[in-house]
Amino acid sequence: VTGINDRPRVAILGLGLIGGSLAGALKAAHWAGEIRAWGRRPDMLEAGLKRGLVDHISLDLAATAADADIIVICAPTLVAADLLAQLLELTGGRRPPPVITDVASVKGSLRAAATAFSGAMPANVVLGHPIAGSERSGVSAANPKLFLRHRVILTPEPETDPAALAQVRAMWEVTGAEVVDMPVEVHDEVLAATSHLPHVLAYALVDALAASAASEEIFRFAAGGFRDFTRIASSDPVMWRDISIANRDAMLRAIDDFGDHLATLRTAIEYGDADALLETFARAKEARDGFAALLAQRNAANTQTGD
Amino acid sequence: VTGINDRPRVAILGLGLIGGSLAGALKAAHWAGEIRAWGRRPDMLEAGLKRGLVDHISLDLAATAADADIIVICAPTLVAADLLAQLLELTGGRRPPPVITDVASVKGSLRAAATAFSGAMPANVVLGHPIAGSERSGVSAANPKLFLRHRVILTPEPETDPAALAQVRAMWEVTGAEVVDMPVEVHDEVLAATSHLPHVLAYALVDALAASAASEEIFRFAAGGFRDFTRIASSDPVMWRDISIANRDAMLRAIDDFGDHLATLRTAIEYGDADALLETFARAKEARDGFAALLAQRNAANTQTGD
Repeated sequence: VTGINDRPRVAILGLGLIGGSLAGALKAAHWAGEIRAWGRRPDMLEAGLKRGLVDHISLDLAATAADADIIVICAPTLVAADLLAQLLELTGGRRPPPVITDVASVKGSLRAAATAFSGAMPANVVLGHPIAGSERSGVSAANPKLFLRHRVILTPEPETDPAALAQVRAMWEVTGAEVVDMPVEVHDEVLAATSHLPHVLAYALVDALAASAASEEIFRFAAGGFRDFTRIASSDPVMWRDISIANRDAMLRAIDDFGDHLATLRTAIEYGDADALLETFARAKEARDGFAALLAQRNAANTQTGD
Repeated sequence: VTGINDRPRVAILGLGLIGGSLAGALKAAHWAGEIRAWGRRPDMLEAGLKRGLVDHISLDLAATAADADIIVICAPTLVAADLLAQLLELTGGRRPPPVITDVASVKGSLRAAATAFSGAMPANVVLGHPIAGSERSGVSAANPKLFLRHRVILTPEPETDPAALAQVRAMWEVTGAEVVDMPVEVHDEVLAATSHLPHVLAYALVDALAASAASEEIFRFAAGGFRDFTRIASSDPVMWRDISIANRDAMLRAIDDFGDHLATLRTAIEYGDADALLETFARAKEARDGFAALLAQRNAANTQTGD
């Protein structure tokens, strides 16, 4: 890799919601020289080709990766780690090597897969994670505007080739995303706190209520607040199984930290400690209101500059 | 109480979101003979009078309650229990006694206050709880349609006068609500599960994240799912302090039951138990999807019959 490629050949591995949306965004911008897609499901690939998201589809991984300038692994976390090792094997002999990136929810497990294969983090690998999604999945839900005004986190290493990083950044900027860099550890901790832990809490809550003797009345009388609070428990179980395995350590820390705070609140409830309850609730409300204000401010700023 | 009063004089004690909305709904239906409001804040009372929600306002509890046919305590849970005891004292000599009801989030604590005062549950007291609310509060947020197509739970006791129950039910039906009866214990358990526990979890989560070393990045990178999940942590801390005190036993049981399920998930994450993770997430997703379908079905049915 020597600089930003002008009309790069892009290979998308896995044509679902994220891969299809990325392909569509790049297509709309006429950015890529060619967009090839590989996947295991011919129906998904054909749907993507039919919608004009990609130029070429194949069930052959090696052929798809063969002369791509950028390879984007758009598979779930555990599959992505496997694909990354396979790609390093497949493309190991190419000079210059292709830029390889991904979109998985956990970065430490992908770095571990790459270093296990290569001995160190390969310079052409730039791990990434777009903070965007939808309750829908599959290429039929693909939306070229999915990343517009959303964050994409890249986690470059000291070994990372700056040109490879610039190429991946340029690709995401084409989609309208705001690209930020972050160490792998910070990414995995922040995602554990803001996404992985809330999913585990929502799954645990719904599972507890469904198992309760009063579950029929419970779901019958649950209202809007409960619907919002538990929405993420409708997420894909396979995706969340994989994330729970891949981000084990950060999730355990987040669960334990949360557990300490819950235990403190439980004690305050048990002893009717009005002051402690009020203090905790007020402090949390202040933090939540601050977060909501931050989000509103960002959305307002984006609305002014975006479309 | 001998039957349903045709043009009852209604006294609303506490003119905030719920009291103001109830008054507005009864006014719109021309149901009450007169609507009086009592409160501690003259500005709230005057705003309610100005908006035409009520006919008469007063800072004098005894005068407001004096010849009311129905007295509706629209105060937060702990204040409501105090007011209920005061009202039983103030109206104890009247024959027939006024119907007394309330809107508090916990019913066991109000029953305890009534039985502590009267030795048994007074026949003219019908405890109730409309499952409706808003992130906004105060009489300025009052909305006569707030209860339309929402549930109102009444918790009659064996001692309850059927005519008093019928009068309270008739009042709520005027607002467009769907009125259902439920034992006090079931109400408090169902609300602990669907509302009180989720609030405690959201408060604990936000408090844990705000206290974390990475809190700045955490709130900076949190997205839509986190916003929905934590919305209820922006609720009124005083209200939730009081509910946590009033519904102590049911909340402790709900927290412990949730804690057991979370601990099981934590173990599955710790040991990378893929099968257990997938099984739990899939079971929870099925329950959550079932709940969402139920809610959608109800909303569709309501849209057909309501306005």
